Amino acid sequence: MNRDAANRTAVERMIASRPHLVSVARAGEVVPGLAGRMLLHAGPPISWERMSGPLRGALTGAVLLEQWAESATAATELLAGGGVRFDCCHHHATVGPMAGVVAPSMAVWIVEDRTHGGRFFSTLNEGSGKVLRFGAYAPEVLEKLHWLNETLAPLLARALAQAGELDLVATLAQALQMGDEGHSRNQAGSLLLFRHLASAIAGSGAPAATRQRALSVLGANWLAILNPLMAAAKAITQAGHGIAGSTIVSTMARNGTDFGIRISGLGERWFTGPARIPQGVLYPGFSEADANPDIGDSVITETAGFGAFAMAAAPAIAELVGGTSEDTLASTREMYEICLAEHPEWRIPILGFRGTPIGIDLQRIMETGILPRINTGIAHREAGIGQIGFGLVRPPLEPFHEAMAAMAAMAASAQHGA
Amino acid sequence: MNRDAANRTAVERMIASRPHLVSVARAGEVVPGLAGRMLLHAGPPISWERMSGPLRGALTGAVLLEQWAESATAATELLAGGGVRFDCCHHHATVGPMAGVVAPSMAVWIVEDRTHGGRFFSTLNEGSGKVLRFGAYAPEVLEKLHWLNETLAPLLARALAQAGELDLVATLAQALQMGDEGHSRNQAGSLLLFRHLASAIAGSGAPAATRQRALSVLGANWLAILNPLMAAAKAITQAGHGIAGSTIVSTMARNGTDFGIRISGLGERWFTGPARIPQGVLYPGFSEADANPDIGDSVITETAGFGAFAMAAAPAIAELVGGTSEDTLASTREMYEICLAEHPEWRIPILGFRGTPIGIDLQRIMETGILPRINTGIAHREAGIGQIGFGLVRPPLEPFHEAMAAMAAMAASAQHGA
Repeated sequence: MNRDAANRTAVERMIASRPHLVSVARAGEVVPGLAGRMLLHAGPPISWERMSGPLRGALTGAVLLEQWAESATAATELLAGGGVRFDCCHHHATVGPMAGVVAPSMAVWIVEDRTHGGRFFSTLNEGSGKVLRFGAYAPEVLEKLHWLNETLAPLLARALAQAGELDLVATLAQALQMGDEGHSRNQAGSLLLFRHLASAIAGSGAPAATRQRALSVLGANWLAILNPLMAAAKAITQAGHGIAGSTIVSTMARNGTDFGIRISGLGERWFTGPARIPQGVLYPGFSEADANPDIGDSVITETAGFGAFAMAAAPAIAELVGGTSEDTLASTREMYEICLAEHPEWRIPILGFRGTPIGIDLQRIMETGILPRINTGIAHREAGIGQIGFGLVRPPLEPFHEAMAAMAAMAASAQHGA
Repeated sequence: MNRDAANRTAVERMIASRPHLVSVARAGEVVPGLAGRMLLHAGPPISWERMSGPLRGALTGAVLLEQWAESATAATELLAGGGVRFDCCHHHATVGPMAGVVAPSMAVWIVEDRTHGGRFFSTLNEGSGKVLRFGAYAPEVLEKLHWLNETLAPLLARALAQAGELDLVATLAQALQMGDEGHSRNQAGSLLLFRHLASAIAGSGAPAATRQRALSVLGANWLAILNPLMAAAKAITQAGHGIAGSTIVSTMARNGTDFGIRISGLGERWFTGPARIPQGVLYPGFSEADANPDIGDSVITETAGFGAFAMAAAPAIAELVGGTSEDTLASTREMYEICLAEHPEWRIPILGFRGTPIGIDLQRIMETGILPRINTGIAHREAGIGQIGFGLVRPPLEPFHEAMAAMAAMAASAQHGA
């Protein structure tokens, strides 16, 4: 298959993908290959030695949550000493925001692709403040996680079973008409998820205080739908992955140290370069010196054609990330330059209902010199401090260069073989 | 006070108004002057003989709901024979969408202005399909109303008491950043209201089936917040009313036959002209010949600076009312021409966070020849059929001409008196 045909196939498969939110279960019971003393993390694979502060903090918290150690010091020793296996989420059909740590006892949303099959996973969003995904592991962080995983999760599973599965492509389509871009701004989508589940939770047999707290916590979290949308984006990008000859960028992910990409036609190989420091609006009291390099699997949203790629749908985000509403239009317009298609359902009203750009083409990135735009939360570089702002970032150029060279090498060897 | 100073006072009072949603109670117990066999309706005052189909239908339904008659025929005879007193909502600090009929047993939202004082009222929104406000009174319409008023209303009152009052200016500000314009499009605002009440309803002592149905019905109604916002708009416009010398348009309202306005400096006098037929997108199977002339108090939203005046915030509405997303920007831009101020909190991201136009000036309308734009639902002209589309309409010119003449006459007599 020549490159154009391969890319057409990849993009058509991405657009045809139909991820639905179907249930909630324990990660250790449903995530493939997550077994024993093992933890998953965001981004490309990385060793303990090279990990940044927030990722180490989140892993430490996860060890405490699993009760594999009794103190943070003991947990860190266990992790540094090889007592816990690590792997990255992407190797297990899973995606996690920021540190993206997934432990066996954690609850995960289950997303199924109704077109291509396959199940994809993401943890429950913890909300804001001190949270594990930014590397915090204070007692209240673990207590909240415990409540999410032990009390809220079964309630969500029952509510989803009663309310029926949620079509995430359609839900995002609606949210894009309500000022979301699906990555840093998820106010509308989170309310739509909340509405989908609320009446079943209200009518459940759980104690009154539990019903009320469940809806208070879910309703207060304006990133509640980010994790399900990330799993949906994983389904979509996976549908475009593994097409021989295709130059579609099928994964982008960061672990806080490296920024990694994978290419549809280049199999499971990661191409990495140094993660950059996001630029944006920091909370009072913090400076750029406090910011960790770019971290998290949430850039899967941009890889699937939303997030910064759908920025024109979310002009209100300008104040969150710095910039003007004109910049939000420019962001989406620029991304059309490096994408091969427009999503037929994710339409942006202010651009005359044009679809969001989808199907990032490595070849076009090299030709135009335009790197993908990414919306992101900004983490403090030390474990446990948490989020210090919102901003924008681009990947390093190196991995794209290397991937292009690998494509050329593969084409050359195929020609020799022919 | 000269005209400019008077208008400044009027507009400053409008912008300072801070309506909060505080409770729900029975209309007969809280709406001032609603007593005995009496019904309120939308628009300026009108006699039974001159009423259009949907208004007659809604009044007939209200008589049946109140059990003042046992059949529709008997109800109509009672109404035609003077057995029921009518007055318009606006004379009772109340506003109602479409037919806008308020009966003593109906539940109303109570909105209080935390700046200027005063309480304002609007019924619970019935949702879509066959509903009283479009003149339907089939048994299922009355049954739904009965459930809203007898079962949902007390639950809402308790939930509001527990969750705390809702700042409607702030809620609309948020909704405008989420693609609402607050009149024909209220998806975001209705979800925000839903979220405000859901956890308290879920935790209430009501039976499980009632809790669940309450959230199903409230969650499914994407106009749920329209009625509270109308009461808020009534509070805001009332704050600008009654300033001697002011040419601010402080009321616009339609009863399905007449379009009426009141002017801040001209007291309680209505100026009326024939209501026009809205232009827009009709549901399949209907033509313009089926459309009733413009009806309802919901144009109070435009009078208070949102609805069609905030159309640029809601580009997705273009498909609902016919037109392009460019038209939505043009709509708001045109309304700046006839308004004296911009609301400091109701900011429109895509216009560089400029505030919505507020404070319609009669003088500017006469100078520019630009009439206010109005977003509206379109009712079938026969009672009982219901909504047949969404569209746009402008008021007739006559009442503005007459009001301007009255202002001139008043100024002249004041000069003679001085």
